[in-house]
Amino acid sequence: MTTLTPDLLRKMHAWWRAANYLSVGQIYLHANPLLEEPLTLAHIKPRLLGHWGTTPGLNLLYVHLNRLIREHDLDMINVIGPGHGGPGLVASTYLEGTYTETYPDISRDRDGMRKLFRQFSWPGGIPSHVAPETPGSIHEGGELGYSLAHAYGAAFDNPDLIVACIVGDGEAETGALATSWHSNKFLNPARDGAVLPILHLNGFKIANPTVLARIGREDLTALLRGYGHEPHFVVGDDPMTVHQQLAQTLDAVLAQIHTIQAAARAPHAPIPASLPRWPMIVLQTPKGWTGPKEVDGLPVEGTWRAHQVPITQFTNAEHIRQLEDWMRSYAPQELFDANGRFREEFAALAPTGNRRMGANPHANGGALLAPLVMPDFRDFAVPVSVPGGTMGESTRVLGTFLAEVMRRNTGSANFRLFGPDETASNRLGAVVEVAGKAWMAGIDAVDLNLSADGRVMEVLSEHLCEGWLEGYLLTGRHGLFSCYEAFVHIIDSMFNQHAKWLEVCRQIPWRLPIASLNYLLTSHVWQQDHNGFSHQDPGFIDVVANKKADVVRIYLAPDANCLLSIADHCLRSRNYVNLIIAGKAPALQWLDIESAAHHCAVGAGIWPWASNDSGDAQGGPDVVMACAGDVPTLETLAAVALLRGYVPDIRIRVVNVVDLMALQPQSEHPHGLDDDAFDAMFTLDRPVVFAFHGYPGLIHRLTYRRHNHDNLHVRGYKEEGTTTTAFDMVVLNNIDRYQLALDAIRRIPRLAHLVDDATRRYEASITRHKAYISEHGEDLPEVRDWRWPA
Amino acid sequence: MTTLTPDLLRKMHAWWRAANYLSVGQIYLHANPLLEEPLTLAHIKPRLLGHWGTTPGLNLLYVHLNRLIREHDLDMINVIGPGHGGPGLVASTYLEGTYTETYPDISRDRDGMRKLFRQFSWPGGIPSHVAPETPGSIHEGGELGYSLAHAYGAAFDNPDLIVACIVGDGEAETGALATSWHSNKFLNPARDGAVLPILHLNGFKIANPTVLARIGREDLTALLRGYGHEPHFVVGDDPMTVHQQLAQTLDAVLAQIHTIQAAARAPHAPIPASLPRWPMIVLQTPKGWTGPKEVDGLPVEGTWRAHQVPITQFTNAEHIRQLEDWMRSYAPQELFDANGRFREEFAALAPTGNRRMGANPHANGGALLAPLVMPDFRDFAVPVSVPGGTMGESTRVLGTFLAEVMRRNTGSANFRLFGPDETASNRLGAVVEVAGKAWMAGIDAVDLNLSADGRVMEVLSEHLCEGWLEGYLLTGRHGLFSCYEAFVHIIDSMFNQHAKWLEVCRQIPWRLPIASLNYLLTSHVWQQDHNGFSHQDPGFIDVVANKKADVVRIYLAPDANCLLSIADHCLRSRNYVNLIIAGKAPALQWLDIESAAHHCAVGAGIWPWASNDSGDAQGGPDVVMACAGDVPTLETLAAVALLRGYVPDIRIRVVNVVDLMALQPQSEHPHGLDDDAFDAMFTLDRPVVFAFHGYPGLIHRLTYRRHNHDNLHVRGYKEEGTTTTAFDMVVLNNIDRYQLALDAIRRIPRLAHLVDDATRRYEASITRHKAYISEHGEDLPEVRDWRWPA
Repeated sequence: MTTLTPDLLRKMHAWWRAANYLSVGQIYLHANPLLEEPLTLAHIKPRLLGHWGTTPGLNLLYVHLNRLIREHDLDMINVIGPGHGGPGLVASTYLEGTYTETYPDISRDRDGMRKLFRQFSWPGGIPSHVAPETPGSIHEGGELGYSLAHAYGAAFDNPDLIVACIVGDGEAETGALATSWHSNKFLNPARDGAVLPILHLNGFKIANPTVLARIGREDLTALLRGYGHEPHFVVGDDPMTVHQQLAQTLDAVLAQIHTIQAAARAPHAPIPASLPRWPMIVLQTPKGWTGPKEVDGLPVEGTWRAHQVPITQFTNAEHIRQLEDWMRSYAPQELFDANGRFREEFAALAPTGNRRMGANPHANGGALLAPLVMPDFRDFAVPVSVPGGTMGESTRVLGTFLAEVMRRNTGSANFRLFGPDETASNRLGAVVEVAGKAWMAGIDAVDLNLSADGRVMEVLSEHLCEGWLEGYLLTGRHGLFSCYEAFVHIIDSMFNQHAKWLEVCRQIPWRLPIASLNYLLTSHVWQQDHNGFSHQDPGFIDVVANKKADVVRIYLAPDANCLLSIADHCLRSRNYVNLIIAGKAPALQWLDIESAAHHCAVGAGIWPWASNDSGDAQGGPDVVMACAGDVPTLETLAAVALLRGYVPDIRIRVVNVVDLMALQPQSEHPHGLDDDAFDAMFTLDRPVVFAFHGYPGLIHRLTYRRHNHDNLHVRGYKEEGTTTTAFDMVVLNNIDRYQLALDAIRRIPRLAHLVDDATRRYEASITRHKAYISEHGEDLPEVRDWRWPA
Repeated sequence: MTTLTPDLLRKMHAWWRAANYLSVGQIYLHANPLLEEPLTLAHIKPRLLGHWGTTPGLNLLYVHLNRLIREHDLDMINVIGPGHGGPGLVASTYLEGTYTETYPDISRDRDGMRKLFRQFSWPGGIPSHVAPETPGSIHEGGELGYSLAHAYGAAFDNPDLIVACIVGDGEAETGALATSWHSNKFLNPARDGAVLPILHLNGFKIANPTVLARIGREDLTALLRGYGHEPHFVVGDDPMTVHQQLAQTLDAVLAQIHTIQAAARAPHAPIPASLPRWPMIVLQTPKGWTGPKEVDGLPVEGTWRAHQVPITQFTNAEHIRQLEDWMRSYAPQELFDANGRFREEFAALAPTGNRRMGANPHANGGALLAPLVMPDFRDFAVPVSVPGGTMGESTRVLGTFLAEVMRRNTGSANFRLFGPDETASNRLGAVVEVAGKAWMAGIDAVDLNLSADGRVMEVLSEHLCEGWLEGYLLTGRHGLFSCYEAFVHIIDSMFNQHAKWLEVCRQIPWRLPIASLNYLLTSHVWQQDHNGFSHQDPGFIDVVANKKADVVRIYLAPDANCLLSIADHCLRSRNYVNLIIAGKAPALQWLDIESAAHHCAVGAGIWPWASNDSGDAQGGPDVVMACAGDVPTLETLAAVALLRGYVPDIRIRVVNVVDLMALQPQSEHPHGLDDDAFDAMFTLDRPVVFAFHGYPGLIHRLTYRRHNHDNLHVRGYKEEGTTTTAFDMVVLNNIDRYQLALDAIRRIPRLAHLVDDATRRYEASITRHKAYISEHGEDLPEVRDWRWPA
């Protein structure tokens, strides 16, 4: 085992010591960075924050991956699952020079090192985890579980890229990570890059051993082989032995990767009979390796006590001496020159230019982003000559548009669609027909549209869809995730983290804009009448609305043409999370394509063809009937028709809201209507009956500062539902046409004399509905066949 | 392979045919249940809903598990991962009699069968999936992924119970399920029951093959062995062969389970050197087995086309004939007598009484629920002689109380604590010292408090913590899940499903109340200053607040004594989800224990010791300073002190809100204050400055109907944060004392002359703060050492 020459081994070991030294320095010191004077309490930070335990392993891998990159001129990035080891990545990028190039103030000398140490976890400085601020990272290291999915997302359509993904053995216990191993069934070695998973088995979490460290080599090997990998174990606690083992192993796994790729990429390569068995590494080294063996008589290195800060308080001189001994054990004077600059013989180990992982443009995806070649969405429009004169299925129409987007961008291989086994169910099948579904395992005669070259990614895991798409976007590509509305909650936390990433990136000039994360939620709450209560939850809107106005957009498409316009806008946008909600069921179409484009651009507007108030000149409307969402729009219009039949001289204004953020004051969201525009739609003093797709509280939360808020009456989903008819779903939640009409009558002062009669009519309608569905098992013909009166 | 005698085989096959017949009937028919007349369109439901694909497999397993139960007098329940196969479970419980006992209207005769068919997915009938309405189920079959975690939760502390858990191969792709296999490292064969996982490998999802069906036997075996199981494969499409194979295999796995349990339960059983290798079954049979081979020329049986309704429309006589042939292929006249009653020779296969899985009381946990033996929470109180005179760590204090709860209930083995590697970090360590942490794998010298008998469940998976706890509660026990606030979003969707389950159960008289699901969120947004932005998200409150008022409760503890009172209340409550938020950091304590108990019982109240308005008699307060959450309470009180120093004659009322639902109108939530009580606290016309723990919009959403809402000014978390000091976190989000004081001055009309000066003072304070933390890396001494003036 002498892959490394003695000289190279010596230098690599020096790099590792330097990275460890800088890591400890970041955690502990705000002064005296080179230990040029004896360490005192005055040099030590008052708040000790950071995670030492995983850091030496990360540092070890960085220098070894660097060797591999240099020797083979690799295009490689790394994804750091145990991202709490932030100091390690900062240290390594500082040693390779990219940190200073990114942040010139952190110079490669004594003063720069002092600032490097001081800024870590210091107010106004940098976060303690791997973060958007870290050069070379596409992965926030705070919440655990998404590293491997991100790594695969990065590798898709990047045939020359290798993504080294370090998976922590704590993180490996999470659900998202546990299923991410299966991503290899969706990676095409001919077309995509490679992912090299490195399971960092350091044995402990904050306070407990890890499961994978205690199941034994036999079961762990079986597990990883079961995931389709060939595991290579590198185990030890003697640095020199581990260096050689790791180097030899990296050479071996790289050769295996190249063999798999070469076989798949050979001209006329046969379709392989079985899945490639991708190599991976299990690196088993002590937690907190090279740190204190014991502190205050308790073992630390190699235990859970090394997880965060090994020496947590400096209550006596012994603690200070122990820290100084620890830092001096790396022999900093051998590593850095008198000015604090990393010695050239060691610094020369780094790759050069963009081959350095801290400078690889794949990790700053905006630098590589090319806009999609877009067809004109108007070409896919549903013809609507009169409102309500046409039926259409919104998502099916969208599918034809997305299929053309896919077709036009197949050559540049930078657009994919993601969905948990629901693309067809969500009626986006046109895309599948153009692009196929990615599938590397065996394909049987009964399978449809599966292909190793597929660009639709389907797996029954919302975590994988989201993680792959995030990785794909963060490396400069485009995509859309279509999901059942209720089950997108499975990735609430991943959304949160991605939105936070974007929020931070907006403050970092060198992070160039990336394509937005686009969600299409369909099979929504009002169209899960067949699956029932478990599938009925519109609350993802609320989760999204909590994030910063800078980055979130929420669109509710009332019909197919609006959906086309919204989707076109979202696919062109940058650095947002766009939440699009649209139905898949056949439904009446309201706007022609030009009207739709205009309506969506404003975000909300009066629908004059549905309104019969003549503006404020003639006293304004008796009531504003507002709606957001396709089913609420239908019910609102049906209510308007009922009201006009019931009270011929009633004056009704219909307002439809597409862009939910238009409701907020402009001070809160850039899409917010100004007060005058809002008041011009919603009036200052007339009752507003608002039918909303989601939980009604959100509308109040968005509008509480609006002038007419006290007159706003919102109907929405109130957690009523089961397997029943579509119309019964709206009845159960009191957002049906009969209810909305009654709500209006009750709130119009001049119609007070009609309230009793209207209430009786309402009750009769509901009774008739309930009796009919109970008898016939489907909705009243007058409901099913209802049309907007021409 | 002749485990089954010819007679038993014949009868079991008949049962299976009957279950399949009843399943098809539920999906398709609303009349003519026994096919006594030729099938016509008039007998077929207008809306065809349901999932046939998985159902024959579920039916097969049910009759085979019944044999096992009878032959070995087993106490067994089943958890149905592919719960879309609802008709199968309804059919099997109908055949065993429990369905009719639960719902007498669905009698065991022709008329009952007609109702059974008709009610399925029919308005006013039953849901299409396995649901709370299904006898014998603890698991909603809508959202996929949680079956195995639920099964383990059910098995814990039920040594005589076997939980058969059917895992769908689609579901197996989800993250939650993928990590759930590792639950076996936390199951003690001496103390707990057994889980028998049955992976139902039927090959397809809605539109795609499944991953596990296409990785090959070798990798699948390796994977399952890697998870610690011994897989037994039952593979085939010939019913008679599969019957024999499955019966033989079930006998074998039961014997293995008994061997493992016997070894662990022997007197003085040695601690085993390695984990037991629990048996499991892989059942590989065709999707939609025994259904139509082809429909309209396309293959159906054994393909993804069998997933839902194989014959989807009846556009010609051929379709009707095909359905009739399919149903008659089960020979219903052999199975049911002339009155439609299941023939006794087959019905006798069912176990009797509570051994029937549809009647097992474990699946109706309220039937077994015993209240916890509770100590007096007052015994754990922090002494508070004057408000703010004591420091305390809320969760550490709670830990001593929970430890005593644990101690008093260890004998009845019905209380566990769950947490993702954070119990110590969340300072609940006292419980660990009493109860130990469950761990069945090897234990090393450096491990602390690990034990096969541990009652604290720690694994780095929020999914497992939540799923185990749900299974534990649903089978009649008690528990609490402590979690970092930000990362509880990982299980948003699991929470949604459990809340929905509880919402439905409240409408089902035979579902007896179970213990509430208690969340303790700590390490919260204001105490993640060290981990940074990724760890800062208080939005779970919003997710919870969307669910029905019937089942959700949200508590924000201002101090340790309030937390004790809240926890006591929650552990005694039933059928709720209780969300408790409390800090872990050392903090000033405000209320003595009796005041705390009173305050928490009301839910919100004026703190007279902090207020100096003398009630409305003297003009009322100038401003109401309201707060909810520990850190907001601290900042509010500090702001009050600042204001009093600045304007000696200012009249301030301090209102603290513990029970967030008290803010809602009583019409919306049973905990809502009535309007008079609300107005008495918040006034009708005075400015209210409200410092809230979470996103501020929620307070507006809860209070928009309150009289004084237009004067309500809310501060909360607005997505600002990083690794910085604790006080800087509140400054970044403008919820700091200086800001709150300035907010008050700006809103008090008689102090308008002070606004400019107050603004300057505010700016100076912030500048001083920023300069100090930048220089010193920790907060200003005047902030760190601030005390409420005696």
